[in-house]
Amino acid sequence: MNNAIFYHAGCPVCVEAEQLILDAIDRSKYLVEVVHLGEHSDHLAEAEKFGVKSVPALVIDEHVFHINFGASIEALK
Amino acid sequence: MNNAIFYHAGCPVCVEAEQLILDAIDRSKYLVEVVHLGEHSDHLAEAEKFGVKSVPALVIDEHVFHINFGASIEALK
Repeated sequence: MNNAIFYHAGCPVCVEAEQLILDAIDRSKYLVEVVHLGEHSDHLAEAEKFGVKSVPALVIDEHVFHINFGASIEALK
Repeated sequence: MNNAIFYHAGCPVCVEAEQLILDAIDRSKYLVEVVHLGEHSDHLAEAEKFGVKSVPALVIDEHVFHINFGASIEALK
């Protein structure tokens, strides 16, 4: 089983949008873990080890993808 | 069937890394399209319509995710 870890810091707009990415991941091939770094700072060292520089970030098989999903003004209304 | 479109501009290091993302997408739920905007500029208007501001970007069900995967110096050696 491959691993996919989604690191975030709890922004509700981003979490909602990024749920789309998690839904799109093939669960038959990937074990998906979601880590809220604001609430679980004990995972910070692990995230840094993978090279996570900002959140949200998706780590797939130890490769980091930093995702910039800006919260649009429309979404915040 | 849902749609996922991956827009890029051909950087080989990024394409290789991002192949991981494409491999992770559940093909039983998502029809995946890959568009090289450098070679297929006729898709630029479509990408802009989705809100794509930079590449690489992944559009899932019309939601844009801009992905910043920097090419590491190690990968370029």
